[in-house]
Amino acid sequence: MMGLNDATPELLTQIEAAIGPKGLRAPGVDDLTEPRGIFKGRAASVIRPSNSAEVSKVMEICHAAQVGVIPLGGGTGLTGGRSLEIGALPVLLSLERMSAIRAVDAAANTMVTEAGAILQNVQTAAEAEDRLFPLSLASQGSAQIGGVLSTNAGGVNVLRYGNARNLCLGLEVVLADGRIWHGLRGLHKDNTGYDIRDLMIGAEGTLGIITAAVLQLFPRPAQQLAAWIAVPNPASALQLFTLMSAALGHSISAFELIDQTGMSFLSETGVMTPPAHLPASPWIVLLDCGAASGDALSSQVETALAEAFEQNLCTDALISQNAAQRDMFWQIRETIPAANRRIGAVSSHDISLPLAAIPKFIETARAAIDPGLRLNCFGHLGDGNLHFNIFPPKGAKRSDFAHMTKDVQRLVYDLVAEMGGSFSAEHGIGRLKLDELQHYGDPVKLAMMRAIKTALDPRGILNPGAVIPL
Amino acid sequence: MMGLNDATPELLTQIEAAIGPKGLRAPGVDDLTEPRGIFKGRAASVIRPSNSAEVSKVMEICHAAQVGVIPLGGGTGLTGGRSLEIGALPVLLSLERMSAIRAVDAAANTMVTEAGAILQNVQTAAEAEDRLFPLSLASQGSAQIGGVLSTNAGGVNVLRYGNARNLCLGLEVVLADGRIWHGLRGLHKDNTGYDIRDLMIGAEGTLGIITAAVLQLFPRPAQQLAAWIAVPNPASALQLFTLMSAALGHSISAFELIDQTGMSFLSETGVMTPPAHLPASPWIVLLDCGAASGDALSSQVETALAEAFEQNLCTDALISQNAAQRDMFWQIRETIPAANRRIGAVSSHDISLPLAAIPKFIETARAAIDPGLRLNCFGHLGDGNLHFNIFPPKGAKRSDFAHMTKDVQRLVYDLVAEMGGSFSAEHGIGRLKLDELQHYGDPVKLAMMRAIKTALDPRGILNPGAVIPL
Repeated sequence: MMGLNDATPELLTQIEAAIGPKGLRAPGVDDLTEPRGIFKGRAASVIRPSNSAEVSKVMEICHAAQVGVIPLGGGTGLTGGRSLEIGALPVLLSLERMSAIRAVDAAANTMVTEAGAILQNVQTAAEAEDRLFPLSLASQGSAQIGGVLSTNAGGVNVLRYGNARNLCLGLEVVLADGRIWHGLRGLHKDNTGYDIRDLMIGAEGTLGIITAAVLQLFPRPAQQLAAWIAVPNPASALQLFTLMSAALGHSISAFELIDQTGMSFLSETGVMTPPAHLPASPWIVLLDCGAASGDALSSQVETALAEAFEQNLCTDALISQNAAQRDMFWQIRETIPAANRRIGAVSSHDISLPLAAIPKFIETARAAIDPGLRLNCFGHLGDGNLHFNIFPPKGAKRSDFAHMTKDVQRLVYDLVAEMGGSFSAEHGIGRLKLDELQHYGDPVKLAMMRAIKTALDPRGILNPGAVIPL
Repeated sequence: MMGLNDATPELLTQIEAAIGPKGLRAPGVDDLTEPRGIFKGRAASVIRPSNSAEVSKVMEICHAAQVGVIPLGGGTGLTGGRSLEIGALPVLLSLERMSAIRAVDAAANTMVTEAGAILQNVQTAAEAEDRLFPLSLASQGSAQIGGVLSTNAGGVNVLRYGNARNLCLGLEVVLADGRIWHGLRGLHKDNTGYDIRDLMIGAEGTLGIITAAVLQLFPRPAQQLAAWIAVPNPASALQLFTLMSAALGHSISAFELIDQTGMSFLSETGVMTPPAHLPASPWIVLLDCGAASGDALSSQVETALAEAFEQNLCTDALISQNAAQRDMFWQIRETIPAANRRIGAVSSHDISLPLAAIPKFIETARAAIDPGLRLNCFGHLGDGNLHFNIFPPKGAKRSDFAHMTKDVQRLVYDLVAEMGGSFSAEHGIGRLKLDELQHYGDPVKLAMMRAIKTALDPRGILNPGAVIPL
């Protein structure tokens, strides 16, 4: 790859001439810093095209000038994907003016949306047509569809509906040199050449700018319920998952593990006071189910739970009696990340493991980490995805433990690798995990990635330094 | 891409020295000709490595000699993917000696298998552990997993479980130059760089040789049933699909459309005599459902069908009363392709469309095609995928109508393109649809495909002339 140039005032003038004065704004702090404050990026401007033809013009100009372009979504990513700290000064490219939901086709279960649409607005637009867009995550009020797809986001419904990749039928993408791939098709089967769609999804803006997408919708489950289940330990949680899967099949949409530490963080930070009547336990499972109208979902869950009690897989359980109670269970779950941020982690790990390895992993890692540190291990057990986060003792400052971060990470990631897992389950690489990717990634895969990056973005202007090291 | 060289006797000697005398055999007719006899390939030898290290050696040798290597699966593909008729003489590479199913993990719902394993054996191995591998197609007794993945095969359960791509968690792939990508991971979430797995899946052996895979298994549905439903026309079939989807949700695993012509072909060719008591109609829907044990599946289907009768969406229906009856329904559906082959099509089309466009498409295409020709339109309505096949009049010879083939194809594919559909839903490109891909494909996507091919296989030795024109 060639060296990049700084984004100069002349370049910005050229861009303004091409897409108008509304097409640029000065970067704010939130545009440059990721939510945990680990990275502080720089950018000459935030470029705001209003349609894909303008995105194409911007890319043509930046390609000719050899200037880095960093796609910016809702800014909720946790791996520094938008924060270039070194090298030539880039521009940020935001699709905030391209937020239209173009069409919802309830009969075909599809939606066409521009990439700047906020995830929550997409969910609401689907609901308005009595449909479900199942991707759901704590940051859905800010996250944009373009970012969600570029990072192949996961969230709480992956178990039943898959990651972002599984929920996308077609894409429109602007390439590094401004060419536009028109792939906005809503087909369920289309074997006409290489799977460029899935290559763009999860590439974190390093291979092209996703400007619009056809999303897959689903019938809304006529019944939904959640259960708050006290379990003795992760091993019983896993056995409970197997039992529930056999009993409920496709009805299970989420199977989340919650650590007692996470519950205590809620009150410790004051972000939320969970109701006192909730079953308490060292470990909690949050089960969520949905079904069509004909199913006797509630009685199925009750029967399965009775079996689980008999097998000593759980010690207490509360089934939601209405939507408000189900929402409350979920609010607790989704507030834990905010509590974590207030406490301040020594080290956070978004890992995945083969399901069977999880109890052993938690036990081994816990035993190996300084007993003075606190562990909050929560996440999407049914997907094999844990957020395995290490915190300072109560009352202590994170900064006093910062020297431990690297060692803790190496310990956790080495163990994950040894057990056949991944050091990045759903958050991606960005700039935070470049070293881990080089260290733990398969060298042949890394070579293929570099070859593909060079083939599609020979000047290296798309999100320089993310995923592929500079 | 550089010019390729013939596979010489010296090259074969070199390969034999590397992997032993069992590693080569002479090509038979079945190795070179696709099932419909459209293509007749040539090959110096069928190379039969017994493990991926040997595949790697073979690729190194062929890469150095710049000789084409055509991966050969079960030989059931319909687009000439293994049949190179022009240019330098290649070798075929068969993984027939790599058919081991290495491990079935029922708790994790995964299976590790070598690429030469027959699809039906994979299904059986899953069943032995009380699990389901849902990919199911007419050729499953011969099709190999490597071919199934390389072509992103579809089949009858796509509606609920997805294409082959959705059923694969990890891959081992040997690249053109012999390097091995070790990606045999059984993780549900793994965002560590570009999605090379899905790029290899569906690439029809032009980017790498898939040597092993981790497949996704599912709990076996405790109850399964099928219904043979007489519907007046495709529009009512589509409305019935919407009604059934709302009522049964994820329980529907297949929603197939069958044309009366297809039924009459069974008796006309004598391949099968369907039972006389089956509801008859110009159009039939074959619905298949599965559910966990707690569901009252049969009563749900009955209730939904009663509603469909009231809305005049169907005129008669038979719900399977046992596994034998369900199997019988499916046997009829899966025997239609064999009857088609005996009749001999003037032109066959494996197309997909946005669901809502299907009735209009069938009507418009039927009206535009010479009324003397017979239409057998069947397939996976729920996925928007039709096999839209045109046959000579009863008693007439296909050869007398061969001059019409090109015109019929152009007519059908033009209409498909106009309606936002795909000219290859599940069969892929191979060599049969190269012209269509160039004509109907998005030019920017085609340019990206070529760039990726050059990046990963710079000498162009992997399945030369398939997908990407020579």
